[in-house]
Parts: sequence; structure tokens; C-alpha cells
Amino acid sequence: MKHPFIAPRGFQFAGITCGIKDGKKKDLCLIWSETPAAGAGVFTRNRVRSPSVTFSEKALKRPGPFRAVLTNSGNANACTGPQGYKDCQAVARQLAETLSIAPGEVLIASTGIIGVPLPVGKILSGIPRLASELSTRGWQDAMRAIMTTDLVPKASSLRYRQEGKTLTISGMCKGSGMIHPDMATMLGYVVTDAAVERGALREALKAAVNRSFNRITVDGDMSTNDCVFLLANGEAKNAPIRKGTPAYTRFVEHLTEVCRDLAFQIVRDGEGATKFVTVRVEGAKTGKQAYTVANAVAKSSLVKTALFGEDPNWGRILAAAGYSGAPVREDKIEIRLNGASLFKNGGPDKATSQSALRKKMKSRDILIALNLHLGDKADEVYTCDLSYDYVRINGEYTT
Amino acid sequence: MKHPFIAPRGFQFAGITCGIKDGKKKDLCLIWSETPAAGAGVFTRNRVRSPSVTFSEKALKRPGPFRAVLTNSGNANACTGPQGYKDCQAVARQLAETLSIAPGEVLIASTGIIGVPLPVGKILSGIPRLASELSTRGWQDAMRAIMTTDLVPKASSLRYRQEGKTLTISGMCKGSGMIHPDMATMLGYVVTDAAVERGALREALKAAVNRSFNRITVDGDMSTNDCVFLLANGEAKNAPIRKGTPAYTRFVEHLTEVCRDLAFQIVRDGEGATKFVTVRVEGAKTGKQAYTVANAVAKSSLVKTALFGEDPNWGRILAAAGYSGAPVREDKIEIRLNGASLFKNGGPDKATSQSALRKKMKSRDILIALNLHLGDKADEVYTCDLSYDYVRINGEYTT
Repeated sequence: MKHPFIAPRGFQFAGITCGIKDGKKKDLCLIWSETPAAGAGVFTRNRVRSPSVTFSEKALKRPGPFRAVLTNSGNANACTGPQGYKDCQAVARQLAETLSIAPGEVLIASTGIIGVPLPVGKILSGIPRLASELSTRGWQDAMRAIMTTDLVPKASSLRYRQEGKTLTISGMCKGSGMIHPDMATMLGYVVTDAAVERGALREALKAAVNRSFNRITVDGDMSTNDCVFLLANGEAKNAPIRKGTPAYTRFVEHLTEVCRDLAFQIVRDGEGATKFVTVRVEGAKTGKQAYTVANAVAKSSLVKTALFGEDPNWGRILAAAGYSGAPVREDKIEIRLNGASLFKNGGPDKATSQSALRKKMKSRDILIALNLHLGDKADEVYTCDLSYDYVRINGEYTT
Repeated sequence: MKHPFIAPRGFQFAGITCGIKDGKKKDLCLIWSETPAAGAGVFTRNRVRSPSVTFSEKALKRPGPFRAVLTNSGNANACTGPQGYKDCQAVARQLAETLSIAPGEVLIASTGIIGVPLPVGKILSGIPRLASELSTRGWQDAMRAIMTTDLVPKASSLRYRQEGKTLTISGMCKGSGMIHPDMATMLGYVVTDAAVERGALREALKAAVNRSFNRITVDGDMSTNDCVFLLANGEAKNAPIRKGTPAYTRFVEHLTEVCRDLAFQIVRDGEGATKFVTVRVEGAKTGKQAYTVANAVAKSSLVKTALFGEDPNWGRILAAAGYSGAPVREDKIEIRLNGASLFKNGGPDKATSQSALRKKMKSRDILIALNLHLGDKADEVYTCDLSYDYVRINGEYTT
């Protein structure tokens, strides 16, 4: 069963306004585990990265445990020089003191404008109020406090039974622009009451992210601030999940399901998006080849504007496959759009009527399926269309 | 001296309407050398390529000579299966017969809609009229007949003296969307009355294209149809230019100048473009590294929308450099925009006022200069901004 959000046992949440954003928008979020939790994280591969990323990546290299994840929105604390890292330390110290935990148990994330020093005073003075608002029902506020250009908050939860125990995996995330694997201005938080060994937790998160957040693209831009955190506090009292066991396989499956649901919500809320687009490539020689082709098609501005214009322009799809770098063969490729055959045997499929195609293009959900007929490997990348609103949002968003 | 177009000795041109495009738009172009010319070509690296490209690439592998380049616009003859190649052969045969030359002396290029069979009947019946309109002043019609979404025709010429002879190099080109190295829906034609040895001609074209057409990007999409042709008929009666000579070096310099002028005209006419943007990367360890960073910045949708919005958003520039794959260091990079320092020492340059910056952003010409401070290599990539009109043009352009 899937719900917007179910607080797993032992987790509390809060979201408040501390004055970073204009108006009364929430901009400070806290996720809190009542008991020590194992932690894992996946971070942007951008060489230019926020000190908040550096701080949390460093923290997660230690064995843990972890208790709190603090996020501020409205300011990315990126390109802020050495001061940015000191600011993270100050924030972690203050939060640790307020919550009576060690600073090493704190993780931090930031999102928003790049290059403006973190308004650390506002955050420090907001922390006591933030901590006082923690509750199991605080997730509604928390998920709003991490938003930037997002139009809607994003959350996903599921519960499943494992050896007589009920395990809950719940996540929230933000992101709508600068979205591209690996990571993007994408913050994701998944918490679970499952008991999971640290090594298994790290591997599970990597596997899940690889099939979810790392398979979406909105505009091809990778952010300086992306991270996905996973905390597992073991409050479900199950036997700790170990790598290589059936329990581990099931955990990864369920974690992946939550992460995919979250990632898809990001694409649906892509800046200016009017469509959710799945690009599936089958019949590739290698998985990498399948990914390369799917990624090129999903990133093509010409494909994305054609989707916005509801034009079944398979020529642009084929051209993108052609320049992807994979050794595709025009005489072998088949292209289908929402089930209708567009292209095969080296030419357009004349059996498909243009009017039927145009009708299919009106769907909010588009599946572009390419079969390369070169092998048996497949992959999928998820994206949205490119609309006027993408330009408006990003032309007007101010530094 | 540079002119829009000067017909080099012994070349004639024509452009007519044969009915491929709607209305009375010209859609058939012929470039003709009165005497046998040496030829060279550079072609798209897209794996999916028009039979027109395959046809001309094959022709140029033979020693030549060449006499005629026929271009149709309105139909790309791409993804048209084996019939597309047969159509090229039929067109070449008919043109050769009309002009009393061998079919092997004909080069072909096509641009326009992908996936629709070439309207070969219209072309065949247009050829006699096209040939009858050949003249040294026909370049005005010719440059219009190669246009698709271009708003303006594009041409460039120069003359220089070499050992007592006057050499003329003249080019025309089309292209405004699907522009990305290597090549794009980019057709370029350069003709010269210089006598140039075949090997030297090929090498010269490659060098010139590498510093011009292969350094521009409009939307990151590489076309199935790009080509640049160079014909040299030797009517200037100079001693044939050989590789490794000072005359060769000068020829490459002048050819590059013409190609850059043409390439820049393509960027200025980029679909929806309001600005011409040069991304210069200096201080790289290798030339490839410089190119990688410049290319990532020039391709970033977020950088390009910020330029459209006239927002000096150096954060997006830095983020793109960071995800380019090159080992850039945030604490070393310097970014300047039209001379104003935006970023150095790991943070924004506070000495630069925002109001001064915003004024600089209003310029139609933007130079983004990054110094990586890692070495002494440099490269440049040229692009335009991303505007509403890009989306409108590509959302509405129909298959």
C-alpha cells in the first residue's frame, strides 16, 4: 500500500519560517529520529558543490549514528567559499545543543540561490522554535519547508510485512529545475523504521537511487547541492537486514519503489512541464548503450519542444538516438509512441495514421519506446516536455 | 576586406521555387563551377544520416573533380530508407545530363523535414529551369533557396593577394536550430577560385570547420544532414597551394575567417536568439578540458535562460563548469562577464556592483570568460540564449 506520507515509528518532523525566503514561506525543515539511526547518503557529482554537501558527505563517512537532518531552502550555501563550511558547523553545533545530541549526529542540506552567504543568524535563531515544533504529524510542514520552485510538495510511503514485523519506508523530496542525473537540485529524504545494517543501507540506497533519481532529467543541468539521505532507526524491531539475504532484496525493492515514486513526482512537477515522458530503450547490446540512447532522447530540446507541441516528430527522436554516441542502426531501429508504431525498417510506419498519432500525443503520459535490435539490454529515462513556462521560470528567477 | 558575397571567378549560382516548400519560397539551389574543381567536405557524425549525406560523402572520397552542388530545402531526405539513396542518384543523373557533366561530379545536400520521401518529381522537373538561371549574380537567390527556419540569409566573402594573384573565398550557409557540433542542421558552402591541391583542401577545410562550425551550439541537437562543402576551381591561376607552405597557412587563416563569420551568423540567427554569446575558457590543463568546460556552459539551458532574462547568474555558469566532467576547482576559477569580474577566490566578487552587471547583461553580445587557473590552454564555444521563441518555433514546427 502506498500513502502520501506515513511517519515511520520514532521519526518526527517540523517545518517553519525563519526568514530566508520572502514572505511567509517555510524555509527550515527538520527530520528527527528519537533514537540513533543508521544513515546513508548519495551526493551530486558536480565538482562545484555546496559546503552543505561536503559537510554531510563527510559526516556519513563516519559510522554514525545519526539523529537529525536540517534543511534550509531559499539559499543553496553554494559558492560561498570557506565561510560556507564554517556556517554549516555553526548550524550543526546549535542544532546539536538544542536537541542534546552530538554535532556529528547532524546532517545538513541546502537549496536555493547560489552564491549568497548563508543567512546563518536567521537559521540559528530559528532552530529552537523548529525543534519545539517537532511532531509525528510535522511532515506536512517539513515537506513544504524544503520547496523552492516546486509547485507541489512531494512525498511517498509504503508499508510491508517482514518476518512478522511491519516495516515503513517514507520519503519526501523537492526539485523541479536543474534536474539531471546524477542528482540535480534534488533533495530527497527517506526514513524507515526498519533495522538495516550500515553497509546494507548504503548499498540499498545506491541501488534505489540508480533506478530512480538518477534516471530522471528535466533540463540536463546538474546541481551543486543534490543529495538523498536515508535514515533507518530500527524501531520496527525486525532482525537487522543484512546484504545478500532475501530480506535485503525485498527492502531494496520497496525502497526503490518509494524513490521512483518520488523521482516521478519531480518530473511531473518539472519546471513548466505539461507531460510525463518515459523513454525506454530495448534491444541494446549493453545496459550502458541503452542508457546512452535513452538519455540523449530524453535530453533533446527538439524532442522536448515537439512533445510540448504534441507533434509526433519521430525524426527528432531518431536524430537524438543517432548522435547519442551509441552505434545505432537506422535500418534496425523501431520506435513506438504510446503503443503506436512510428518507425521501422528504415522508414516511417505508414500503417499508423497521423490523426491517430496526434490523438495519442494529447496524453499527459508519453512512452517513447525504441528497440535497437542489437541485443537484449534495456534501460529507461524519465523526463518532461520543454515549454514556454520553463523559459519564463528560468529567465525570471533571479540571482 | 569582407563582403556579404563576391562570386569567385568561374562560379555561378541559382535558386528557384520547385514546390517542395509551401507558398512561393525558394527551395532548390545550385552552385556551379564552370571548370573542374577540387572538392572537400565535412559531414555530420550522427549515426542516423540522410542518404544525401551518404551520397556526397561517398562522392568526395573519389578524387573528383566536381562541378555542381545541388541543394533542396524543405525536405531533409532523412530516414527515408533505401529509396532516399536512389532518389539522390536520380537527381544527380538528371542534373549531370542537364549540365553535360558526369553524375560523379555532382554533390547533393538536403535540409528540412525528416522522414518524408524526397519529392523527387518536383526536383527533377525543376532542374532544367534551375540550370538555365545560373549566373554569377545568382547567389542572392541561391542563399535564399537553402533556408529553412532561418530568418536571414547568410554569406561571407573575402579577397586577399597571394604571390601577385587575387584569391577570393566566399561562403553561404543555412541553419538556426538543431545546431550543435559536430555540425547541426547546418549546411555550408564555400567556393574559392584559388588553386589548392586536393589533400591540402581537405585538411584546410577540416581545420577551418573545427574552429568555426564545430564551435557553435544553439540547442545541443546534432542533425542528420549537416555538411560543409568546399570547392576550389583554380581560376585565380595561382600556383597550386600545397600543405606545409606559407601559402597554405594563409589560405587556412582566410578560410577560417570566412567559416567563422558564417558560423557566427548562424548563432545570431539561432532559433529565438536575442544574444550572441561567446564562452571562453582559459587556464585549462589541456585544450580538450577547455573545450569540455566551454561546451557545458554554452549548452546549459539554465545559463541560456538566465542570459535571455539578462540575469548575471554566475552560479549557473559555475555549476555547469562543475558538472562538465573537467576537474575544475571552485577556489581557483575566475569568471568575468563582458569584462566585469563575477567570481573569484571561491566566492562572488563583491567589488562588482549588481547594477553595473545588469547593465552589461543588456548587451546583445555577451562574453563569458572563465579562467580555470590549472594550465595555459584555451578554447571558445559560441552560442545564443534560450527564449520563448525557441519553444514556439520548435513546438509548432510540424513533421
